[in-house]
Amino acid sequence: MTRHLHLNAFLMSTGHHEASWRLPESNPVANTDVAHYQNLARIAERGKFDSIFFADSPVLFGDVGRRPAGSLEPTVLLTAIAAATSKIGLIATASTTYNDPFNLARRFASVDHVSGGRAGWNVVTTAGPDAALNFNLADQPAHAERYDRAAEFLEVAFKLWDSWEDDATLADKEAGVWGDNAKVHPIDHVGRHFQVRGPLNLPRSPQGYPLIVQAGSSEDGKGLAARYSEAVFTAQQTLEDAQAFYKDLKARTAALGRDPNGVKILPGIVPVIGGTVEEALRLERELDELIKPEYARDQLARTLRLKPEDLPLDQQLPADLPDEDEIEGAKSRYTLIVTLARREKLTVRELIGRLGGGRGHRTFSGTPEQVADAIQEWFDADAADGFNIMPAVLPSGLEVFTDQVVPILQRRGLFRTEYTGSTLRDHYGLARPVRSGGSLEAPESLQAATA
Amino acid sequence: MTRHLHLNAFLMSTGHHEASWRLPESNPVANTDVAHYQNLARIAERGKFDSIFFADSPVLFGDVGRRPAGSLEPTVLLTAIAAATSKIGLIATASTTYNDPFNLARRFASVDHVSGGRAGWNVVTTAGPDAALNFNLADQPAHAERYDRAAEFLEVAFKLWDSWEDDATLADKEAGVWGDNAKVHPIDHVGRHFQVRGPLNLPRSPQGYPLIVQAGSSEDGKGLAARYSEAVFTAQQTLEDAQAFYKDLKARTAALGRDPNGVKILPGIVPVIGGTVEEALRLERELDELIKPEYARDQLARTLRLKPEDLPLDQQLPADLPDEDEIEGAKSRYTLIVTLARREKLTVRELIGRLGGGRGHRTFSGTPEQVADAIQEWFDADAADGFNIMPAVLPSGLEVFTDQVVPILQRRGLFRTEYTGSTLRDHYGLARPVRSGGSLEAPESLQAATA
Ligand SMILES: Cc1cc2nc3c(=O)[nH]c(=O)nc-3n(C[C@H](O)[C@H](O)[C@H](O)COP(=O)(O)O)c2cc1C
Ligand SMILES: Cc1cc2nc3c(=O)[nH]c(=O)nc-3n(C[C@H](O)[C@H](O)[C@H](O)COP(=O)(O)O)c2cc1C
Repeated sequence: MTRHLHLNAFLMSTGHHEASWRLPESNPVANTDVAHYQNLARIAERGKFDSIFFADSPVLFGDVGRRPAGSLEPTVLLTAIAAATSKIGLIATASTTYNDPFNLARRFASVDHVSGGRAGWNVVTTAGPDAALNFNLADQPAHAERYDRAAEFLEVAFKLWDSWEDDATLADKEAGVWGDNAKVHPIDHVGRHFQVRGPLNLPRSPQGYPLIVQAGSSEDGKGLAARYSEAVFTAQQTLEDAQAFYKDLKARTAALGRDPNGVKILPGIVPVIGGTVEEALRLERELDELIKPEYARDQLARTLRLKPEDLPLDQQLPADLPDEDEIEGAKSRYTLIVTLARREKLTVRELIGRLGGGRGHRTFSGTPEQVADAIQEWFDADAADGFNIMPAVLPSGLEVFTDQVVPILQRRGLFRTEYTGSTLRDHYGLARPVRSGGSLEAPESLQAATA
Repeated sequence: MTRHLHLNAFLMSTGHHEASWRLPESNPVANTDVAHYQNLARIAERGKFDSIFFADSPVLFGDVGRRPAGSLEPTVLLTAIAAATSKIGLIATASTTYNDPFNLARRFASVDHVSGGRAGWNVVTTAGPDAALNFNLADQPAHAERYDRAAEFLEVAFKLWDSWEDDATLADKEAGVWGDNAKVHPIDHVGRHFQVRGPLNLPRSPQGYPLIVQAGSSEDGKGLAARYSEAVFTAQQTLEDAQAFYKDLKARTAALGRDPNGVKILPGIVPVIGGTVEEALRLERELDELIKPEYARDQLARTLRLKPEDLPLDQQLPADLPDEDEIEGAKSRYTLIVTLARREKLTVRELIGRLGGGRGHRTFSGTPEQVADAIQEWFDADAADGFNIMPAVLPSGLEVFTDQVVPILQRRGLFRTEYTGSTLRDHYGLARPVRSGGSLEAPESLQAATA
């Protein structure tokens, strides 16, 4: 069997580079402009991407001076995009810490219905104390507690999505019987975090479940991914790290009795593309020069739990930083940043430059051919099943990738030239989950789905 | 000043008549078919309706045999419809009992952004014990407690919608300053039900707030409506009852220092329209004959807190029924049903026929001219500012109303022939709320809005 590469377009207002909004070409209020996002999705669909994706957190972060702040709620945004596209998958982030399973399961099932089976859910636990303050809490629940809730949240969601059998709707006009009560089941879930009777107030959706995506790379995050997810977003700076992550996660998946092929691993890459290497580097430099380091230093200080004054711009990071174990927020991103700075002996200013392009994701500047090579290298070396493409500037970066890199990947036989299915699961080569009948646990039902 | 009539199209799968799905013309799975709803909205927009509206409850009710069961989550549905229309207002129901203010305020603000200022929220407290069981509760909170939470929920939502000043976005590319931190405010809400720091993670939306609609007619419900709402849906069977309700609610609004004109009162009407009276009555009879009384009796028994066996089909309601005070669910609907049955000395079978058409709303069968007369009579007699049009069968009932009743209302100078504004508030003649600066309480800010 030839492996096929998967491509997800990670979309974010004017682009992933924090200064992208300052370019003359950028629409600085793109973050609330639905037409901007519909246009981006159409470009990605023209490029036969598997999916588009939106990150999210239910809180306004820090400084609104820095870059376009605030964003449309992702399930609303996906729905608006569904109406403007017909094939591409649609993945939204939603937090298990700050939602109710009944409402959220219903919303994703609704998006799946409305889009004809194109919905995906990036399941996150939401790091950082700030979001908690919007939800009646004085601080975020501890990291382990958040992941415990996430697992139970998913179990409840699976049960709700399975609460209607696929053939529960009879629509028998003659007999006057619309649905079959024997095929719609309460779930009667009673757990540590949730008591939910069900059933869902919505017939089973085209995909059964939305595609389950996971994006935390801590130990607990990898555990959740291995057990429940079908695609994993991850930030990896080097081939070796990416290979180790890939191998580890596939092994964890297999150890739980699941087909490791049922979990697609998608590291992020921020491509900055030019006709020549020089042009690409010039574009990168132009962008970096537009960064205002004070903004970025404030955020770095928050991540490292320091004060901005503790981070002189032209020195390396302080020697004594907390251990990942002590971090209750985004553990894996913390470690990645510290490791990157130490390995490359970066000053704070240099580190900020590296993070400004992709917040810890791999950045790569070069010609279309070189970008295709960079992608193929990791793909061939079992470091990735595909990539999270994170254009530095939008829409132009996505257009260039679609028109110049995708054709190369297609010529090399790595990437589809046409969609062969109509659902998001079809694109990723993942089966529709078989209904568990309300008795099987979620892992087995996913196992059946991905076998 | 000439008063102008407002029309809202209350949409529900194959129509409001419970047997509508059994007609040959009906698509029995319309309840999950987004194209069906987009089509309905386009028809209503052709008829220059102020808005369309969806009811909702986060629970699957009773018997799925009876009629199309389960529905798309309304904010998702509105968003899909926004993409297919350009002028008509879009009102979704959401529960203050089973949502978080931060998430819900953001979702409505998102729909408002995505639709260009066409979002409305029907604020309900969700009656009945069943929904509670989907949200970690053993029973619903008491009626008064639900309304207390609803009021605070609205206060939080108003503060969040006001947390960004209208001109907080600078987008100053040259200076590298995107937003003005001095114009984005935490709300620091601390109340009996909620602690929410804010600000919202979304700039202020085109309408400022979505249109606030209220639909409960109990004492507490009317109190909430008078204080916060801008439109009120209500079920009224007789002109006298409707006039009394209208007068009462306008007086309550004025007593709170608000302009009574800032609250539009919209009773429901289920029109069954025929070319002749006979044809209309035949259609009504055809529909009623398709009702299976067992289904309806089960639900009536639940509403009255009796067993189905306590309701022999050919007898009147039992003499000793609980008082409205004892009802913790939908108080006003309970009273309406009991009053209707007693006043008209209806048998259970007859009562079911009356409720099957509109669940307690006024039904009216006649020619287009007679329907227009019925509407004008109530409008002229200060019983209504407009109507909640609840077609018995969809799409046909909405088409006939749009093509045959609307032109009569237009000829009489009662109803618009073109949209004169672009937002939902424009259609209802309500001003955009002035930002309260986070210090004024919501009622005053609404007062400013509707003055
Ligand atoms: C591509 C990518 C996208 C992510 N998107 C989000 C997001 O939208 N919201 C969020 O709370 N976390 C998101 N995360 C995960 C955060 O990095 C995560 O909260 C953090 O890693 C915490 O998980 P951990 O402690 O398991 O690492 C994303 C991660 C990656 C790699
Ligand atoms: C036209 C109309 C639509 C309504 N839609 C809903 C709804 O979608 N969800 C809901 O929980 N209540 C809805 N209600 C209100 C219920 O009737 C309400 O829950 C009930 O009246 C409880 O409020 P009360 O006790 O104040 O009467 C609606 C009422 C009317 C008149």
